[in-house]
Amino acid sequence: MALIVKKFGGSSVATTAKIMAVAERVLREKAPDDKIVLVVSAMGDTTDELLDLAGQISPHPNSREMDMLLATGEQVSVALLAMAFQQLGSVSVSLTGPQAGVMTNSVYSKARILDVKPDRIKSELAKGRIVIVAGFQGLSPEGDITTLGRGGSDTTAVAIAGALRADSCEIFTDVDGVYSADPRVVKAARRMKEITHNEMLEMARLGAVVMQPRSVEMGKHYGVPIHVRSTFTQEAGTIIREEYTMQEREFIIRGVTHDTNVAKIAILGVPDRPGIAHKIFSALANAAIDVDMIVQSIRNSDQHINDIVFTIAKADLAKAKGLAEQATKDMGVLRVVVEDNVAKVSVVGAGMYGSPGIAATMFGALAEAGINIEVISTSEISISCLIQADQVKDAVNAIHSRFFQG
Amino acid sequence: MALIVKKFGGSSVATTAKIMAVAERVLREKAPDDKIVLVVSAMGDTTDELLDLAGQISPHPNSREMDMLLATGEQVSVALLAMAFQQLGSVSVSLTGPQAGVMTNSVYSKARILDVKPDRIKSELAKGRIVIVAGFQGLSPEGDITTLGRGGSDTTAVAIAGALRADSCEIFTDVDGVYSADPRVVKAARRMKEITHNEMLEMARLGAVVMQPRSVEMGKHYGVPIHVRSTFTQEAGTIIREEYTMQEREFIIRGVTHDTNVAKIAILGVPDRPGIAHKIFSALANAAIDVDMIVQSIRNSDQHINDIVFTIAKADLAKAKGLAEQATKDMGVLRVVVEDNVAKVSVVGAGMYGSPGIAATMFGALAEAGINIEVISTSEISISCLIQADQVKDAVNAIHSRFFQG
Repeated sequence: MALIVKKFGGSSVATTAKIMAVAERVLREKAPDDKIVLVVSAMGDTTDELLDLAGQISPHPNSREMDMLLATGEQVSVALLAMAFQQLGSVSVSLTGPQAGVMTNSVYSKARILDVKPDRIKSELAKGRIVIVAGFQGLSPEGDITTLGRGGSDTTAVAIAGALRADSCEIFTDVDGVYSADPRVVKAARRMKEITHNEMLEMARLGAVVMQPRSVEMGKHYGVPIHVRSTFTQEAGTIIREEYTMQEREFIIRGVTHDTNVAKIAILGVPDRPGIAHKIFSALANAAIDVDMIVQSIRNSDQHINDIVFTIAKADLAKAKGLAEQATKDMGVLRVVVEDNVAKVSVVGAGMYGSPGIAATMFGALAEAGINIEVISTSEISISCLIQADQVKDAVNAIHSRFFQG
Repeated sequence: MALIVKKFGGSSVATTAKIMAVAERVLREKAPDDKIVLVVSAMGDTTDELLDLAGQISPHPNSREMDMLLATGEQVSVALLAMAFQQLGSVSVSLTGPQAGVMTNSVYSKARILDVKPDRIKSELAKGRIVIVAGFQGLSPEGDITTLGRGGSDTTAVAIAGALRADSCEIFTDVDGVYSADPRVVKAARRMKEITHNEMLEMARLGAVVMQPRSVEMGKHYGVPIHVRSTFTQEAGTIIREEYTMQEREFIIRGVTHDTNVAKIAILGVPDRPGIAHKIFSALANAAIDVDMIVQSIRNSDQHINDIVFTIAKADLAKAKGLAEQATKDMGVLRVVVEDNVAKVSVVGAGMYGSPGIAATMFGALAEAGINIEVISTSEISISCLIQADQVKDAVNAIHSRFFQG
């Protein structure tokens, strides 16, 4: 007997025919004694239709009421999926997020799960029922309905799996696993059998879009293995877990990621005095602008002048430039230069810490492809290079080829 | 300051434009200190669309899951209406039936309200908010979502008004009050300013479709005056209350109703022995068939033979005939005769008990119009006659004219 949580996204339940197909697949893959909890998103375009209705009423709808509105999307799909199981002769029951004990904070539209109280789920499982939980939603301490924001149904599934100490948490999605690079960019990209939570988190942070970081963090927190699989094929997929179970890893580098939603700001000619970086980055932090790579380099040590270069999301560029100029305007800074025609390529691998040649190999691959590196940053499990945006495809292929086909 | 509960049906909130219009009207009619609770149905065709989705999955969907599905309809409309108030600069909050404390039994799809725990509504009102409650739905003792069946939002509104001891409960609907007869049948029908709960209950039982009996019963139970008004006009409407407040009533008869959803069964030649009627009507009761008028007449007192005639809803005719035949098959009953081309016309008025001429006046009106009476039955506040269905319009007009224009 296994206790398995399975999550199906909006495209998997977009029509009543697809909802029937999900029920059929779950029953086909279920061992007789398995206990199954399903977490389901809203049907296909439902959320967009609800957003459109709200937009007809108000350009800036109240976020509490927006959550009240949007939560109906999953409630519809769980009820229909429960009917589908019953039509196939199985016993099932649907639960809203609040009914399933998904407790969140009160930050409407991007609430965080604080706790899952799985009593109701457990009692329904004990009755032999397949339990179908509305993803993406929970209950605030005030008793209001909240939604979790992007990737919320994944997070619901992982949190429930953690609270139930489930044997596995399967995320059914429109890709069939985690690849060594984006398969649309790198033809030879390989599907990974296993990857660690930390590697997946770093890959998500650096541009991989398979899983939202929140759900992977949740998996790490609860020690839940997350099995990423395709709704539309029978492929084995990728298991995201704490540690590798396979004796030997094929590759130290687990993924090459890229991110083109990045812009660069260079503050040139900053006087080399304490507190200046603090002033600049405090101003950005107060405006809730996420700064990614930061490099300070010495322009001229005799004149005590530095350059500070950092990257941010493209959408924040204009605001960040204004703040940087204001923060440095009395410092005799020469210039604030911005560039949004840049991209970041990264390699991720938990084993790279003990492998000193990784950075050299990455830089060599880029050099050989004639690609100039503008900024470099590293973490314990990743190395990132900022390059020109029009070279990103070449860069990812060159790096991937060196690490995975070399 | 007044505490007012107002209920708007599905046609009042069928589009986002109509939802805005409801919010504007409520604000226009609101005195500055008034506390307002709104009870709202699902938008126009939403329920039909959800039923259609369920029908695509299963011909006989599970009723618990059906309630889970249908309850989303009101959740959408309350969230949108709350957004509309906020767009107009008012403070409002939407609540599902369960959040509003509407506690029901577990009879899915036609649950009965057992209690309303209005703590959340009260605390939101105390914060100066307009409270918008999803009608038609509640919470079962097991923590599941239930729906109340036909007219459920009216019942929600009256139950909440009762629990809050509201000053009034206004039901906005597509007619502008309770009429002395169906205005589509009787051109001269008058709108009543006032009518008692008991009269309204009797009129609903006898064919008037303005209000479902459940909500009127609830109003009677809590002593809540129910004010029936039109969504689309500013007419004064009709107040349904315990006792008349006006010094003198204009008319003893308050309404002439008709019902064509009726069929007649005659059991001819029943032996005059104790226990036979019991056997027949027990069989019908066990099959959950509602019997309306019952008349037993003596055919031949020497031979001790009676005829028993009763009426039922048309849909139950075939089943009832079979049961009647079976229950009497060993009794030497001559024949079971059925007829579905019949209709019932009734007069209702709480004051008729002390006015002996009412029945004579009604029968006289029918006789003068050349209409034969097949069965007569009376209650403390009504008299009903079964006639041929094709004469129903003439009958209602003849009776109405005698009592209201005579």
